[in-house]
Order: sequence, then C-alpha cells, then structure tokens
Amino acid sequence: MKLKEVAERIECELEGDGAIEIRRVWGIERAEPGDLTFYANRKYVSALKATKASAVIHGQRDEVDIAAGVARLRAADPYLAFAKAVELFAPAHHPPAGVHRLADVAPSASIAPDASIAAFVSVGEGARIGAGAVIYPHVTIGPGAVIGADCVIHARVSIREHVVIGARVVIQDGAVIGSDGFGFAHRADGTHQKIPQIGGVVIEDDVEIGANAAIDRPAVGETRIGAGTKIDNLVQIAHGVTVGRDVLLAAQVGIAGSTSVEDRVTLAGQVGVAGHLTVGKGVVATAQSGIPNSVEAGSFISGYPAIDNRDWLKSSAIFRKLPELKKALADLQQRLDALEEKSKR
Amino acid sequence: MKLKEVAERIECELEGDGAIEIRRVWGIERAEPGDLTFYANRKYVSALKATKASAVIHGQRDEVDIAAGVARLRAADPYLAFAKAVELFAPAHHPPAGVHRLADVAPSASIAPDASIAAFVSVGEGARIGAGAVIYPHVTIGPGAVIGADCVIHARVSIREHVVIGARVVIQDGAVIGSDGFGFAHRADGTHQKIPQIGGVVIEDDVEIGANAAIDRPAVGETRIGAGTKIDNLVQIAHGVTVGRDVLLAAQVGIAGSTSVEDRVTLAGQVGVAGHLTVGKGVVATAQSGIPNSVEAGSFISGYPAIDNRDWLKSSAIFRKLPELKKALADLQQRLDALEEKSKR
Amino acid sequence: MKLKEVAERIECELEGDGAIEIRRVWGIERAEPGDLTFYANRKYVSALKATKASAVIHGQRDEVDIAAGVARLRAADPYLAFAKAVELFAPAHHPPAGVHRLADVAPSASIAPDASIAAFVSVGEGARIGAGAVIYPHVTIGPGAVIGADCVIHARVSIREHVVIGARVVIQDGAVIGSDGFGFAHRADGTHQKIPQIGGVVIEDDVEIGANAAIDRPAVGETRIGAGTKIDNLVQIAHGVTVGRDVLLAAQVGIAGSTSVEDRVTLAGQVGVAGHLTVGKGVVATAQSGIPNSVEAGSFISGYPAIDNRDWLKSSAIFRKLPELKKALADLQQRLDALEEKSKR
Repeated sequence: MKLKEVAERIECELEGDGAIEIRRVWGIERAEPGDLTFYANRKYVSALKATKASAVIHGQRDEVDIAAGVARLRAADPYLAFAKAVELFAPAHHPPAGVHRLADVAPSASIAPDASIAAFVSVGEGARIGAGAVIYPHVTIGPGAVIGADCVIHARVSIREHVVIGARVVIQDGAVIGSDGFGFAHRADGTHQKIPQIGGVVIEDDVEIGANAAIDRPAVGETRIGAGTKIDNLVQIAHGVTVGRDVLLAAQVGIAGSTSVEDRVTLAGQVGVAGHLTVGKGVVATAQSGIPNSVEAGSFISGYPAIDNRDWLKSSAIFRKLPELKKALADLQQRLDALEEKSKR
Repeated sequence: MKLKEVAERIECELEGDGAIEIRRVWGIERAEPGDLTFYANRKYVSALKATKASAVIHGQRDEVDIAAGVARLRAADPYLAFAKAVELFAPAHHPPAGVHRLADVAPSASIAPDASIAAFVSVGEGARIGAGAVIYPHVTIGPGAVIGADCVIHARVSIREHVVIGARVVIQDGAVIGSDGFGFAHRADGTHQKIPQIGGVVIEDDVEIGANAAIDRPAVGETRIGAGTKIDNLVQIAHGVTVGRDVLLAAQVGIAGSTSVEDRVTLAGQVGVAGHLTVGKGVVATAQSGIPNSVEAGSFISGYPAIDNRDWLKSSAIFRKLPELKKALADLQQRLDALEEKSKR
Repeated sequence: MKLKEVAERIECELEGDGAIEIRRVWGIERAEPGDLTFYANRKYVSALKATKASAVIHGQRDEVDIAAGVARLRAADPYLAFAKAVELFAPAHHPPAGVHRLADVAPSASIAPDASIAAFVSVGEGARIGAGAVIYPHVTIGPGAVIGADCVIHARVSIREHVVIGARVVIQDGAVIGSDGFGFAHRADGTHQKIPQIGGVVIEDDVEIGANAAIDRPAVGETRIGAGTKIDNLVQIAHGVTVGRDVLLAAQVGIAGSTSVEDRVTLAGQVGVAGHLTVGKGVVATAQSGIPNSVEAGSFISGYPAIDNRDWLKSSAIFRKLPELKKALADLQQRLDALEEKSKR
C-alpha cells in the first residue's frame, strides 16, 4: 500500500514521499525499509533518530528528530493511528462458516448459519450462538449459554451453563466464564458446606477477556462485566462482582466477591481488591496495590494497603531511609541526654 | 414451596405468614415479592429496610428493622441457613450416565456404570472412575489416575498420570492436577537440569479446586490436599506441599515447594507462602500477605513480610505519616541545635 | 539397581555397602529400607539422623551424622546428583508414535513420522511438528505454528498461529502461547480500540513452561523466551517481552509489555515487573517484589517498590517497630519542651 493511501486511511497528515510502498507496521528498533513505525513514548527518542523504517507515525505537534529521508505521518493521537495502521495490514483470518464434523452440538442448540464452530467444540442443550461468531477448537459452551454476534472465542475457553455474552466479545484461550463462586458456609464442626452457585454471569458488548482468566458465578444474583471493558490474562473476578464500562484490568488482578468496580477504572497488574466494596468511577491503581476499602471516584492510588499515590511515593522514599531515620533519632536522644545532664548542673 | 416448609427444611424459626409461596432465593437489593433473601453482613442494614423480598433469613437474636410485611426466618447461623435454602431451590442437573460416543477411553480403564463421561473426554490406560462421578467435556485423565465416587470434574480439567482423587471432590474448569513441579538442578555452566517429577498427588475427600488452579507433583514423595479443603481460582500449589483439612485458600494464593499448611488455615487472596516451612493450625493471613517463615498455630497475620495483624495495622498507619514523622524529627533537630547553641553561651 | 552401579552412574563417591539393592529415590523423612535419599538443605539435619533410607546422597565434604548403617554417596553437587538419580529410576513413558484416529490434523500440516499426536489434538493448516515430539490430548496448534524436535506438549495447551517453538521444549497442561497482547488505544470518547496483535512468539530450545501460564504475542515484532529458561505455573509474559537464556521465573510472576529480562535472572514467586524496562543479567528478586524501574545487572532486590535486599531487610525490621519509633519521637519532644521551658527561665 502506498504511504499516501495509508496516511488517508489512518487520518494522518503526510510529510514526505507518499509514493513509498509500505508492506507492514513494525517496531521502531527493528523496522527496515518498507516498514511503517510509530513513536509515542519518550523512551524511544534515540531509537527514532536511528530507525531504518520508511515512515514514522508521531504526534501532530511533536518536534522530533528522525533519521534522514524517513517520512512522517502526523497524527492527532499517534497510538490510535498506530492501532489503525496495524489493522490495515493485519491478515484477514476467517475460519470457514459451519459446524466442523468433529464438533458436538446438542440438538436443541441454535447456531447462526454463518457462525464458525471448530473441531472438538462442545455446545450444550439450548445454547445459542450468534451471527458471525467464531468458536475455536476445544471450547465448551454449557447448556443455555448465549454467545452474541461476531464474538471470537479462542481455543479451550469454558463458557458455563446459562452465561450470557454480548456482541463482539473476544475471549482468549483457556479463560473460564461462569465457574462456581468460592462460596462456603462454616459448619459448627469446622467443615464447610458448599453454597450452590446458581446465579448468572453477563458479559456485555465489546468486552475482551484474557488467556486463563476466571470469572465466577454467584449463588444468587449475577456477576456482570460492563460494555467495552478489557480484562487481561490470569485475572480473577469473584462471584457477584460488578465491573462497569470501559474498565481496564491488567494481568493477574484479583477482585473479591460482591465488589463493584465503576466505569473507566484502571487497575494495573497484580492489584488485589477486597470484597463488598466500591471502587469509584475513574480510579487508577498502580501495580500490586492492595485495596481493602472503598475508593472515591477519581482517586489515583498505590500501596498495600492502598493510599493516595503521591503520599505513597513520599512514604516509600522514606521507608528506604528508615535506618538513617532511626539513627538520627538515636543521635537526638544522646544529644538530649547530654543537654539534660548539663542543665542539671 | 410454602415458606413454612422452607423454614422447616432449613431449620429456622418462622415469624410471619407461612403460607407465602417462595419461588427462589435472591440478593437483598434485587429481591422481589416471592423471593427469600438473607441478612448476615451489617453493610446491608439499610438494604434490609428497603427489601422487596417476601421473607428474610437472619440471626436468631438479631434485632433488625425490616421492611413492613416481610416474614422472618430466624436462624442459629444465617449464612448456613442461606446455603441450605439455595440448595433447596437449585435445579438438579444430572448429565446422563454412560460414556459419550465422542469420548476416548482406554481399554484397560475402569468406569463405574453410573458415571457420566462427556464428549471429548480422554481417559488413559488403567484409570479408574468411581460411581456417580460426572466428567464434563475436554477433561484429560492420565494413565493410572483414580477419581472417587460422586466427583464432579468440570470441563477442561487435567488430571495427570497416577493422581489419586477421593470422593465428592469438585474441580472447576481448567484446573491442572499433577503437573510437573518446578524442580531443576543448577549445572556448573549456568544451565538447569530438569529433575523428573514422578511423585504422587493425593486429593482427599470433599475437596474443591477452583478454575485454572494448578497443583504440582514432586520429584519424590507426594503433594497432598487434606479432606474438606477448599481452593479458589488460579491458586498455585507447588511440588511436595502438604495442605491439611478444612483449609481455605482464596484466589491467586501461591504456596512454594515442600511447605506444610496445617488444618483450618485460611489464606486470603494473593497471599504468598515461601517453601520448606510450616503454617500452623488455624493461622489466618489477610490478602496479599507474604509469608517468608514458619507461622505459629493460631496466628492472625498480615503484611509483606507478614507480621502480627495488629502490629501491621499500627505500622501501616504510621507508614502513611512518615513524611510528618520525618518533618517532626527535623524540627526537633533544629530546636536542639538552638538549645545547644544557647547552652554554650 | 545395586548401589555401586547407582554411584557410578550419578558420579558419586561410595562409602558403604555397594551391594545394597536400591529400588527408588525417596524423601528423607519417609524413605524406607531400599530407598536412596538425599541431603542438601540444613533444615533436614535431624531427619538425616533418623532416616530409614539405605543410602544418602550428600555433599563431598559434608561432615554430617547419619543413622547407623546407612551408606553415603558423596557428590560434588548433591542436588544435581539427586536429579540424576531420580532420572535413573523414572519410568520411561513413551506414548505411541503416530496420529490418533480422533485427532484433527489439517491436510497441509506436516507431522514427523515418529511424533505422537494424541486424541482430540487439533493441528492447523501449515503447522509443522518435529521428530520425536509428543503432543498430549486437547492441544490446539494453530495454523503455521512450528514445534521443534523432542518437545513434550502436555494436555490442553494452546499454541496459537505462527508461534515458533524450538527443540526439547516442555509445556505443562493448560499453558497458552501466543494469545493476543493486552493492546488497546484510547479513543476520545473513553472507549478503547483493539490493536490487532499479529506479531510473533518464539520459544527457544530447552525452555520449560508451567501449567496455565500465558505468553502473549505483540502487535508488531515478537515476544521471545531464550534458550534454557524455565517458567513456572500461572506466570504472565506480556506482549513484546524478551526473556534471556537460563532465566528462572517462579509461579505467578508477571512481566509487563516490552520489558527485557536478561540472561540468568531469577524472579521468585509473585514478583511483578513493570513495562518497558530492563532487568539486568543475573538479577535476583525475592518473592512478591514489585519492580517499577530498570535494575542493574547482578542486583539482589526485594520489596514493593523493589530496593536492594539488605536495605529492604533493615527497613522492614524498623517498619515493625514504627509504633516504638513514633513513641520515642514523642518522648523526645516532651523532654525538649521541658528543657526549652527551663532554659527560658
């Protein structure tokens, strides 16, 4: 594709030779002639001067040095333009429509004619699979489950009984949706009685769920993931959790039972959230934060237990110097001893 | 079912109209007429006044305000009564007995006649599956493995060779039992030699294991999970670990090799336990605790590294105020400087 | 096998009766007559005096007390000798070569004649599987993926499209290699646009990957795991990460996008590493460390955020005593108040 056409399709302002033939989008450090690359992170400013790419996407008003002869595509949002560029060059991969001869589909299940059901897929009684959905091998779809239009369910995903999944949802390999919540009642003798987990799980439109993530169903009521939310690998969502819209949950985050995570929250990797609390709209928590209590909308938090990010940074800086602080205190004590001694005389 | 009958079957004392027809158990905030709900957590005291449920389970001696006209079921243990109530209304789901035509069962495997083996289940040579066991699709059962009576093995579980599983064990989707432990010996040249992991894994009766959890086998000896223990999603149990009876391990807990976790321990979410140590009977560790050393029975611990919970709470409260503490120290220094100066005069 | 032969084959110096018949290698505390055990950790010094094993492997120069009549095998590296001994007694398990009748192999895929493809394995178009490779049930191998010679791919592993895996790689059950990276661009309206993840994943020779681990592919470029690296269960490797050679990543470690982990790094359990940074050669991080910035080669670090291990130990020891420190400060203030008062007079 000519660079001029790329620029038009990803809505960038072209500076340079529009006739260059672009064959792929590639990382700034390994790009070669014929590649389009992008710059959106200052860590790569020196790589930019040395890149062998034929063209670079960068911010509209960025004044950056680029290797000679490299064309520029100025973008209102370079990362978004990059996303669109990758999309342009991504190979279209459409598995064939229809049900593979080695799939096992219950007679009462309903499969859209243009959906694609791969080998070794198991579809339970009464399940429904929407138009254009692609189901990769070894997916289990339980009785009564609903998969919306244009979903992509990668290999070895479990969608348990009666789970409801909206349109355009993408689920990576090995994720489990609708497993039993961790709900047990203590018996007087110290053993635990399982509470049947028979509530629902609803995954709204345009959600993405990462590899080997787990989303539990509750005993009563439902677990719900709001539209547009993106969940990374190995994330744990417990029974009865409500996650709002356009939330980002990075890898290995865990959210305990009945908690509500409101719209546009961002939890970085390995964050843990306790049960029965509310993480307000737009909260951002940095990696490994432990959140024991409800958090006000708009907060930016860190730490274990999580506190305001700036306070945590300050306290963490002093934590490192606690031995000095302790020594300073001991010095003061000595000086004070001396002074007291002197004042007695 | 009439409320009177529900009360009898879950052993509660009825206050109100026993003739009400109950159709399901539901959460306090979303319950509607015809629903039975429950109250066991003070966070929901205002929801209780507003509930539209027809009846509420609560503690025998709780003096709580409930919306007018709502019947009460007084329970010795409201959460346990709730568990029994959910059980009452849970739909019975029994997949058909027998081996699905698309399962692959080795000739020398032994399957109880009333066990249920779903499509795409793989059963290795010499494996044995007990009476009433239900094996969902895509489960792999390795050669020589034993599954006890009335187990429920959800979809896509791996039960590796020679693993022994007791009766009434429930395993959620995607869990792996008996994978190779992470055992390598350092070679002089900096590379690592794999130590064959050929020990056993024993899961005793009434254990539950969560979705995508992993329980490794050791090189020698065994990994053992005691009767009645409940393990949540994405938990890691390393090679040679011994977990006692009625232990609760919440989601994303990790226990390193050869450690012993004694009876009735509770580890909250994301707790990590180092290898070769003992966590004594009844220990409770709060979420994200990191346990580097053995812990005495009965301890209640928190923190990284984990210490007594009360000490950790106090130290954490001061941690937040370290900048103030540092400033206070600097002030003292200045005052002391001034005083020393003065005393010289 | 006679003890004399064992000693020769694992290159140990024998002290005792070489004619003893050894039937297995077993743990020091549970070993019985006929067992060979090993001693490499001081925690087991008293177990050594009480062992019922017939022979013990220990360090060449160790002066240790062992129960009477127990033979000794002195080893330059006792753990390595133990590894070799386990290998000696490990049962050889070779599934039959050939493609199972219930596997689904695309016509254009290429399978070495002596590879073993189990039931319910799905192999995509153009995939290649090398000589001697063993593929267990329910493995999905995507179009164009390459599996090297003598790999062992345990049950229910996902190897996504175009992933390249070297020779002698071992992958435990449920791991996912090549899932889409967590790459989204923010749109102006607060929603997120998926960036197609179409880069490569390369797993070099002699790597081991644990159960339910996840290794993502990037949008552009590649994710690479260097030769000899060992990755434990439930580890997360994000898009575009580069892991060097002979690295050890313990269970539940998470590494964020585009980070580089150099040769021979060791990250203990539950360590988290932020994105776009470098963890230098030979770095060791203790369990649960959170690494927010690049780390110099050879560092030994701990903490959240991670700092030098010794500093962290000192600061953590004082953290526990913060209430005392605060009290000491308050005492000083009082004494200073009194002194100031006195000096005014």
